[in-house]
Amino acid sequence: MALIVQKYGGTSVGSVERITAVAERVQRWVTLGHQVVVVLSAMSGETDRLLGLAKQIQPRPEPRELDVLLSTGEQVTIALLSMALAARECPARSYTGAQVQILTDSAHNKARIRDIDGARVQADLDAGRVVVIAGFQGIDEHGDITTLGRGGSDTSAVAIAAALKADECQIYTDVDGVYTTDPRVEPRARKLDRITFEEMLEMASLGSKVLQIRSVEFAGKYQVPLRVLSSFIDGEGTLITFEDESVEDAKIAGIAFSRDEAKLTVLGVPDQPGVAHQILGPIAAANIEVDMIIQNVGAQEATTDFTFTVHRNDYARALEILDAMAHTLGARQVLGDAKIVKISLVGVGMRSHAGIASQMFGCLAKEGINIRMISTSEIKISVVIDEKYLELGVRTLHEAFGLAAD
Amino acid sequence: MALIVQKYGGTSVGSVERITAVAERVQRWVTLGHQVVVVLSAMSGETDRLLGLAKQIQPRPEPRELDVLLSTGEQVTIALLSMALAARECPARSYTGAQVQILTDSAHNKARIRDIDGARVQADLDAGRVVVIAGFQGIDEHGDITTLGRGGSDTSAVAIAAALKADECQIYTDVDGVYTTDPRVEPRARKLDRITFEEMLEMASLGSKVLQIRSVEFAGKYQVPLRVLSSFIDGEGTLITFEDESVEDAKIAGIAFSRDEAKLTVLGVPDQPGVAHQILGPIAAANIEVDMIIQNVGAQEATTDFTFTVHRNDYARALEILDAMAHTLGARQVLGDAKIVKISLVGVGMRSHAGIASQMFGCLAKEGINIRMISTSEIKISVVIDEKYLELGVRTLHEAFGLAAD
Repeated sequence: MALIVQKYGGTSVGSVERITAVAERVQRWVTLGHQVVVVLSAMSGETDRLLGLAKQIQPRPEPRELDVLLSTGEQVTIALLSMALAARECPARSYTGAQVQILTDSAHNKARIRDIDGARVQADLDAGRVVVIAGFQGIDEHGDITTLGRGGSDTSAVAIAAALKADECQIYTDVDGVYTTDPRVEPRARKLDRITFEEMLEMASLGSKVLQIRSVEFAGKYQVPLRVLSSFIDGEGTLITFEDESVEDAKIAGIAFSRDEAKLTVLGVPDQPGVAHQILGPIAAANIEVDMIIQNVGAQEATTDFTFTVHRNDYARALEILDAMAHTLGARQVLGDAKIVKISLVGVGMRSHAGIASQMFGCLAKEGINIRMISTSEIKISVVIDEKYLELGVRTLHEAFGLAAD
Repeated sequence: MALIVQKYGGTSVGSVERITAVAERVQRWVTLGHQVVVVLSAMSGETDRLLGLAKQIQPRPEPRELDVLLSTGEQVTIALLSMALAARECPARSYTGAQVQILTDSAHNKARIRDIDGARVQADLDAGRVVVIAGFQGIDEHGDITTLGRGGSDTSAVAIAAALKADECQIYTDVDGVYTTDPRVEPRARKLDRITFEEMLEMASLGSKVLQIRSVEFAGKYQVPLRVLSSFIDGEGTLITFEDESVEDAKIAGIAFSRDEAKLTVLGVPDQPGVAHQILGPIAAANIEVDMIIQNVGAQEATTDFTFTVHRNDYARALEILDAMAHTLGARQVLGDAKIVKISLVGVGMRSHAGIASQMFGCLAKEGINIRMISTSEIKISVVIDEKYLELGVRTLHEAFGLAAD
């Protein structure tokens, strides 16, 4: 007998039929002799509907009251699932975040979990009941309702699993696991049976939106075994492991990419201390996040060329800021390119395998793909290339590093 | 400065526009220097929508889980109204039944309020905030969410007013007060400025569905001054007073009527002890409520005729039961009539004015309206007449007792 925490997202509980299907799945685990805690999101679309009502009343809704409003979404699904379980003679009890005492700080709309008292939940489990908990929400020390922000249900599930010392935390989504890359770009992409926490963090932050990155960090911190599965297709999903070495003995776990990149270059700035700060200070002040940064010796003596990337949504604004200060900087020219993408190889195997970067660059060169920028970390190599080469680049690297399905 | 509790029903908060209108009204009271507590229902239609979802999953939903589900309805409106108030620079805070600690028993779906801790609400009021509380819901001693049953928001408001020792509890509805009779039947019906609690109880239970009868009882018990007003039209509404004598110095406060009546008669039962019990026992066992009861000497010697009324919905079933036992009873015949109505004169003035009953009977006789049954209490006289005479009867009595508007 194991204690399993299962989390189902908005699509998985998006209709009465799907809630019934979740009840069937939960019942199967109970029948196998396991104790099951279910953590739910709101029905898909519900949070947006509520947010729409709020914005009609107040364009920037009061954060405290927005949490009171949005937290009703999960309260509806936990009640409905508990009914569906009861209808199948599977005793269940629902709890809101407040009832189960998911204690958070008071940062409304983006609260962080501080503590969970698992006593009441454990008592229900021991009495043979399934416990159904509202994800995404908690309560602060004043008794005010809080929410964790979008995708917070994953974090709720992991935190509850940690508090109950659960044997596994299963995140049910609309994909059947983590893939070596996006199957829409490379149809031969392969589902990974396992991936390490570090790799998962890099894959998630690079745009493979399977899991909320905060929940992965949380699971890593509290050593909660995490599994990503499909709520529609049966299967083992992908287990996220703590082993330091990639258990699959592959150099590379997967290829992440991001289409939302844009590149800005300031040419011929006088090469003197403080230039980087002079350029990036106003960008940061405009709340624009900068990803990759490169500074090169310039074409003319005593000057330097400075390049960085931002999210494509911030491109126009960033270009405006640079243009406005080009003269003050003494820059020769400001260039921009919003037609670039980023591709990243991710794998803990890089630590023990040399030459991966040069192999990557060689592959891309052979296909005539020009690399515009490079950035590396211990388990990741990212390159910026022209947008039009994205698919070709991903498929070439996928093949070259032996990631394809057999 | 007064402490006012205002309750708005589902129609009054049925859309974003209407919620904004409620915020305007609340703000006006605050501007006048009053402390205001607002108690809200769910948006009209929302409770039915949620109930519909539940019934798709489980035809008879788990009572505990149904309360978790339905209580989200008011949680939405309290958040939205608080936002609307904040948008008008009128600081407000919302509280669910659980947060404000409306302690109830554990009778899910029809819980009764046991206690309310007004401390947190009073602290907010003293800090200059409007407090917005979810009606219809509470929490039991185990921390489980409960609901008070349909219309329970009126009771919530009165109970909160009692706990806070409010100066007045204002119930905003879609009518502008209590009328001498239904204006759809008698266009000259007049709004009452005041009515006594006893009269209001008789009017309410007789079909003038302005207030939940439980809330009126509650207000009477805790001596909470109650006022019924329109949330759409400005006005003083109707104040429900504790004075024993009708302050309007009228004999009659109003005329209530009910179209949902049906009459059953068992003719020629042997006149012996226990007959009434023999007849009504099986009716009660079938959960049919009996209203008026008359037993007369029968046409034949040593027999009696027994007549009673039931709700029209129960008529067919009641007739079936009587037919089945007619032989055992030794009854001569069982008769039924579902085309009857009840008209009642209500007024504490009856206590001190003699001859009201005979005046009533005389009026009806003059119009050729035959009285089928009569029943009286200290402040009420009810007659059963043929359905077709309802409008004529109500208008005749309304005129005769001087109730019409000038």
